[in-house]
Amino acid sequence: MSLLVIGSLALDTIETPFGKKEYTLGGSATFISVSASYFTENLRLVGIVGYDFPAEEIDFLKSKKIDTSGLIISKEYKTFHWHGKYHTDMNNRDSITTELNAFAHFDPVISKEFINSDYVCLGNVDPVIQLKVIKQLNKPKLIMADTMNFWIEGKPDSVIEMLKHINILVINDSEVRLLAKENNLIKAAKIILKMGPKILIIKKGEYGAMLLTSETIFSVPAYPIEDVKDPTGAGDSFAGGLIGWISKTNDYSDRNLKKAIIWGTIMASLSVQSFSLESIRKLKQSEINERYNKFIEILNYN
Amino acid sequence: MSLLVIGSLALDTIETPFGKKEYTLGGSATFISVSASYFTENLRLVGIVGYDFPAEEIDFLKSKKIDTSGLIISKEYKTFHWHGKYHTDMNNRDSITTELNAFAHFDPVISKEFINSDYVCLGNVDPVIQLKVIKQLNKPKLIMADTMNFWIEGKPDSVIEMLKHINILVINDSEVRLLAKENNLIKAAKIILKMGPKILIIKKGEYGAMLLTSETIFSVPAYPIEDVKDPTGAGDSFAGGLIGWISKTNDYSDRNLKKAIIWGTIMASLSVQSFSLESIRKLKQSEINERYNKFIEILNYN
Repeated sequence: MSLLVIGSLALDTIETPFGKKEYTLGGSATFISVSASYFTENLRLVGIVGYDFPAEEIDFLKSKKIDTSGLIISKEYKTFHWHGKYHTDMNNRDSITTELNAFAHFDPVISKEFINSDYVCLGNVDPVIQLKVIKQLNKPKLIMADTMNFWIEGKPDSVIEMLKHINILVINDSEVRLLAKENNLIKAAKIILKMGPKILIIKKGEYGAMLLTSETIFSVPAYPIEDVKDPTGAGDSFAGGLIGWISKTNDYSDRNLKKAIIWGTIMASLSVQSFSLESIRKLKQSEINERYNKFIEILNYN
Repeated sequence: MSLLVIGSLALDTIETPFGKKEYTLGGSATFISVSASYFTENLRLVGIVGYDFPAEEIDFLKSKKIDTSGLIISKEYKTFHWHGKYHTDMNNRDSITTELNAFAHFDPVISKEFINSDYVCLGNVDPVIQLKVIKQLNKPKLIMADTMNFWIEGKPDSVIEMLKHINILVINDSEVRLLAKENNLIKAAKIILKMGPKILIIKKGEYGAMLLTSETIFSVPAYPIEDVKDPTGAGDSFAGGLIGWISKTNDYSDRNLKKAIIWGTIMASLSVQSFSLESIRKLKQSEINERYNKFIEILNYN
């Protein structure tokens, strides 16, 4: 099936206790599409970069069979740049710089070919932009979206409107509580399931992920990783594996969503073992499958 | 098999956003033994209470087929009293009062019958007392112990000595990090597995639990609960279900430890749905089994 991914592309500077990388490829749409590329073909990317964006990174995306014809290259502005610094426990980070640059002018127009995509993944961008994209689409099978506290607090009406038009919402547990205004996670999830999406997937970082639909609750731990080098992009790698699997199998039954979450978990675990996109940009299928098998052992209670 | 439980018995005052209960039965040994009583027979309790301890609560413990002959009733002091107050998110609490009373004079002498117990569970008490108990035991099959940040920071040498003599350590994730002086949980766990216990079980509260041995990593989420009334005793209810299952089956293979952790998770989830010991003091076997079946559905990824 075809999969359309919309979101940010960035050049990130990242500092963790294990080192520093400057102006390295990042952004939600990048992580999602590269992660999904290990599962599904017919991948379409829509985003904006600046005149400084390295041509070889576009070649890299193409090498992953990602259709980059929806990528706008601004002649006026530089690429979105984020500089983040993680602390010792890796669960907290400071944003040192956030330069939106070209991304501040992102106003996606979806091509005639792309509006007919089967599956759509809206990365974490302004909900107003997410809604603009949704309006252009021609009856996709399924729309999955991410959002964050910044938008839930800053543009709550747009977030609530966006929710009415999507099938899967993928957010962090703290964002579930914030959006539902309810502290108990399960109660909060049920409130969100009444706001539009029939499927809620909750990311809990090092504690794993959870699926909630009207029929099903499913919960998986994270894959245990000893050498977390950089958590940047873990959530988007998760989302990419998830939507990539759904698109590949063309199946979003509750049963197959469980499998999708497991594949997402695998991709997130591979992502955090190197800086930024480094590890997931050059994975072998055998590495992914091997980790999947190990994870099944960890989950197996018999 | 026989199971010996050593720890505190208390009369707790607990405040949560859902209400307040005064001088209600609590304490680590109470939760552990009552929880274990649903699994195994031949349960022996060693602890100390004050002259104010209600006689009907001793009758209650006896009704659970717990041998209370190791319970000392102080004529001089009152029962250990803790007053705790939980905040809105239920993950944080303040200790308003901690009156050790009789418990300050706890110096357990294990009877001739009890020293031959097959399985031993050392609740969270002073590691010096844990060591005193261990020295009295006559080759038990397995010793499981709990400890906490208060002892890890306050009596590190005694904790480290105690670890050399036990088979299973059951502690919180923050305590794993503190004890191992390592932030990464998996690395920290491996350090602890070199300190004595061959089996480490990590409690992660609302995020579930994890088993680590030299051969096995296993991770389960918590059972999702909408109506958490009071988290007091959840960890001890978990430990009770866990050691109760091991004692019942007389099997501490890695494979059976996974099952034990699932039963512990079930008991913890039942415990938090009422104040203090209220829900687990009067459970039906069918309620426990029903929840087990629901949990297996949540874990099932096929």
